[in-house]
Amino acid sequence: MAKNITPRAENYSQWYLDVIAAGQLADHAPVKGCMVIRPSGYAIWEEIQARLDRMFKETGHVNAYFPVLIPESFIRREAQHVEGFSPELAIVTHAGGKELEEPLVVRPTSETVIGHMYAQWVQSYRDLPLLINQWCNVMRWELRTRLFLRTTEFLWQEGHTAHETGAEAEAETLRMLDVYRRFQEETLAMPVLVGRKTESEKFPGALHTYCVEAMMQDKKALQNGTSHNLGQNFARAFEIQYLDRENVRRHVHTTSWGVSTRMIGGLLMTHSDDDGLVLPPRIAPVKAVVIPIYKSDEERSAVLPFAQQVQARLGAALDPLKVRLDDRADLRPADRFFHWVQQGVPLRVEVGPKDVQRGQAMLVRRDTRAKQPAALDALAETAQAVLERMQADLYDRARAFRDANTHRIDSYADFKALMAGEGGFALAHWNGSAEVERRIKEETKATIRLIPLDGEAEPGRCMVTGEPSPRRVLFAIAY
Amino acid sequence: MAKNITPRAENYSQWYLDVIAAGQLADHAPVKGCMVIRPSGYAIWEEIQARLDRMFKETGHVNAYFPVLIPESFIRREAQHVEGFSPELAIVTHAGGKELEEPLVVRPTSETVIGHMYAQWVQSYRDLPLLINQWCNVMRWELRTRLFLRTTEFLWQEGHTAHETGAEAEAETLRMLDVYRRFQEETLAMPVLVGRKTESEKFPGALHTYCVEAMMQDKKALQNGTSHNLGQNFARAFEIQYLDRENVRRHVHTTSWGVSTRMIGGLLMTHSDDDGLVLPPRIAPVKAVVIPIYKSDEERSAVLPFAQQVQARLGAALDPLKVRLDDRADLRPADRFFHWVQQGVPLRVEVGPKDVQRGQAMLVRRDTRAKQPAALDALAETAQAVLERMQADLYDRARAFRDANTHRIDSYADFKALMAGEGGFALAHWNGSAEVERRIKEETKATIRLIPLDGEAEPGRCMVTGEPSPRRVLFAIAY
Repeated sequence: MAKNITPRAENYSQWYLDVIAAGQLADHAPVKGCMVIRPSGYAIWEEIQARLDRMFKETGHVNAYFPVLIPESFIRREAQHVEGFSPELAIVTHAGGKELEEPLVVRPTSETVIGHMYAQWVQSYRDLPLLINQWCNVMRWELRTRLFLRTTEFLWQEGHTAHETGAEAEAETLRMLDVYRRFQEETLAMPVLVGRKTESEKFPGALHTYCVEAMMQDKKALQNGTSHNLGQNFARAFEIQYLDRENVRRHVHTTSWGVSTRMIGGLLMTHSDDDGLVLPPRIAPVKAVVIPIYKSDEERSAVLPFAQQVQARLGAALDPLKVRLDDRADLRPADRFFHWVQQGVPLRVEVGPKDVQRGQAMLVRRDTRAKQPAALDALAETAQAVLERMQADLYDRARAFRDANTHRIDSYADFKALMAGEGGFALAHWNGSAEVERRIKEETKATIRLIPLDGEAEPGRCMVTGEPSPRRVLFAIAY
Repeated sequence: MAKNITPRAENYSQWYLDVIAAGQLADHAPVKGCMVIRPSGYAIWEEIQARLDRMFKETGHVNAYFPVLIPESFIRREAQHVEGFSPELAIVTHAGGKELEEPLVVRPTSETVIGHMYAQWVQSYRDLPLLINQWCNVMRWELRTRLFLRTTEFLWQEGHTAHETGAEAEAETLRMLDVYRRFQEETLAMPVLVGRKTESEKFPGALHTYCVEAMMQDKKALQNGTSHNLGQNFARAFEIQYLDRENVRRHVHTTSWGVSTRMIGGLLMTHSDDDGLVLPPRIAPVKAVVIPIYKSDEERSAVLPFAQQVQARLGAALDPLKVRLDDRADLRPADRFFHWVQQGVPLRVEVGPKDVQRGQAMLVRRDTRAKQPAALDALAETAQAVLERMQADLYDRARAFRDANTHRIDSYADFKALMAGEGGFALAHWNGSAEVERRIKEETKATIRLIPLDGEAEPGRCMVTGEPSPRRVLFAIAY
C-alpha cells in the first residue's frame, strides 16, 4: 500500500487530500480558499473541456467571452439572485490608483452581465434562439473550502441561452442536463441520477433547477452539474425583449447550465483507491506508460529499443501524446511504477529482457492490477480492448456500489438510523413542504438531492408527517 | 462598398471599429474598457488557442492554472515589477461581506504567484526545467482602450519556465519567440520582425525582453507577442532555489512569454479591407460558405440538393464544422453574400440553376473576389488549392506592403519628416542612450520597436548625436 496515502477506511477526507497530493493534481494557493491546478490535474480539465465542448457544438452552441467584472448594481436587479449571491461576492473597490464610483464584483456567475448584452443583441424572433457558452473562472467567497469540490475561485463553463417560448427554454434545459448525464456516464464512467431540485435548493433566480448527482465512495452525494430554466426572470430584470412573429414585443425565456472543476473531485472520489488516483481510460490525459526494466547496460541495450517500438505502436493506435515511455535512470522500476500508479494512468506496459526474447510486453491494468501479456503484433489491439474493458468495468463497479447503497426507506426512524449509520442514498416519501425538508436537514444533515424525472410515480405517505406524496424523492448527505 | 463600414482612407480608426461591429467580433462591456468577445470573434481565439497550444506541447510545455487574485504584497517583492504594474492594478478590498486583511490584486500577469508556487515545487535539478503555460484572463487598468488592441481585461497565455542555467533560460526565451514568429507568419499570414527591446521598453522585472512586431495597414507597428528572460530576478524575490548537480543551493533562472487577444486586432488590421474582415484560411473558423441561388420553388428544388452535395464534399475535405450552407429564406442572396463577406469567410461557393446544369459550383475568394468554376468531382481539390493560394497571397501582400514602407533613414530631419508624413518603419542608427530614445519619442511619437537579432551588423552614426552605433534599430509609431 502507498505510504503517502491514508487509507479510505482510516480517514476518508485525508485520503482525498493525499490522493490529490500524490497525483500532483492541485495545491493550495497563497490566497485562502483558492487553488492552483497543477499540470496533472489541469490535463484532466483539458480532456473534460475538449469532449464537453464538442458536445456543446454538436447541439448548436457557440462560445463567447464576457467580462470578469460586473457592476454591483447588476447583481441587485433580480431579487432572488442578489439574496443568493451577495454573501459570497469578492468586490473590486479601487482600480488604476483611484476609488471606483461604483464597486465591481468578480463574477460569481454571469446571468446578469450576459442578460445586459442579450438585451442589446436580441431584436426580433430571427435572433433567437441565442445559444452561447462561456469557459471561464468564477469566484464565490466560501468559508469552508476543499480542493476541487469547493474553492473560492473555480473554473467552469456556463451556458446561457435565450428562446422565444417557455417550452423551448424547458427543452433546452433538459437537453443540456442530458448532455451532462451522457458525458459523465460515458466518458467519466460515473453513474449519475438526474432530477429536479426542490424550491429551497434551486438556483437563485431560476424557475426550476435540474441537476446531476453521483454517489461518492463514502456514500455521500456530489452535485456534479446543474441546468436552470430561468423563465422570464432575468429577461424582465434586464429587459431582454424581442418582436415576435406577430410583431408583438415580448420578453425572452432564458436558461443557464454549468459544470465545473468540481467534477475532477467527483471523478477522483468515484474511482480512486488506497494507492491513489484511478482515471477512466476515455478521460485519462496519459492512457499508457511503457516502462523498460533492466539490470545492466547490456540488458538496457536490448530492452530500450523494443520498449520504443512498443511506445510507437501504442502511440499510433491511441495518440502519440498520450503514451509515455519512462526510462528515468535515477529511479528503480518500482518507483517508476509507483509514480504512474499515483497519476492514475490506466495501463502500465512493462518490458523486461524476457519479454523482448518472447517478442511481447506485459499489460497491467491500474484498477485491478490484472496482468496480461501481448505479442508486439497484437499489442495495439489488445491494449485497446483492455482499456475499453476497464472503462466499462469502472462504470459497472461504481453503479453496483451506488445501487447497493441506495435504500427505499418508509419510516423516519429508519431514515435517521441510515443517515447516522452506514449512510447512502434514501428514496423516501416527502409531503412537499420546505418546513419538513428543513427539519430533516437539521435532524439528519440529509437533503433532498433531487426529485426524479422518470420512473413510475409511486404514491405513498411522507415519512415524517404521514401526509400523501405522489412519488419518492432522493435524500442523501451531500458535499 | 459596404455602407456600414467607413473606408480606411477616410478614417482608419473608425474603419477598425466598423469592421469589428460588422463582423460581430466584439462589443463594449458595461464596465469601462472591458470587452465582450462575441461568438464570431471568440471562434478566432479558439483557433489561435488550438494551434498555439499544440506548438507549446510539441516544445515540451504543459498547462496549469494559477489563481486570479494575488496578495498585494507579492507584487511589491520585485522592485521593477511593482513600479511597472502598480498604476494599472484592480484591487479587491472586500470579500464575503468583510474587509480583507490584505488587499488582493486581480492578476495583471502571474510571475509573482507562480514564483511563489515554484519555490515550493522545485527542490533539485531533477525538477528542472519546469515548463508551464497558462491560458487565462488578466487585467490592467488602462486609460485609453480600444477593442482587442488594449482592453482593461484581456485573454492571453502566459508561459513561465524555470531552468538550471542562464544559457538554458536564454535558449527557452528565444525558442518561444520563434514559436510566435512561426505561428504568426505561417498561420496568421502576418509577416513579423523579431528582436530585442531597449532597456526602457522591456518588461518590468526582466533581464531582456524579445518581441514580435508587425506593420498594420496604417503603417503603425503592433507588438504582437513578447518573450522575457527574467534572469534570477524573480527567483531571488520568491526564493526559488534548487540543489544543483554538485549539491549546491542555487537560484533558478526563469522566463515568461505571452500573446493575447490583441493578436485578433493585428490580424484584422493586416488583412481586412473596406468591405470588412478578411481572414487567412488557416485561422478562419468558417473556411467556406455555400450559397444556393434561386428565384422560384422549382429552381430551389434543383439547387438545394446540389448545394448540399457541395457542402458535404467540402466538409469532408476541410472539416464539416467549418463549411456552412446559408439558405436563409428571409435574405436575398446578395444580403447573404454581404453577411459572410463581413465575417471574413475566405471562400464563397455559389450554386445557381446554371451551375447545377453544368455540374459545377462557383468559387469566390474573399480577398481578390476572383471567381473560378469547379466541377463537383474536382471541387474539394480546387477549393483546397484556392485556399492555399489565398493564404500565401495574403502573406505576400502584407510582406510587400511592409517592405515598401520600411526605410533606411540616415538623417534625423528625414526621420522627422517620415514620421510626421507618410509614416512607416525606419531603420536608423542610434547611440544606445535612453535619453536620445526619449527625445525621439517626444519629438516624433516614434519608439524603438526592436533591436534586430540577425542580419549583418552595420556600423554607422546615431542620426541624432552622430555618435557611433553598431547597427540600425527599428523605429515606428506604435499601437
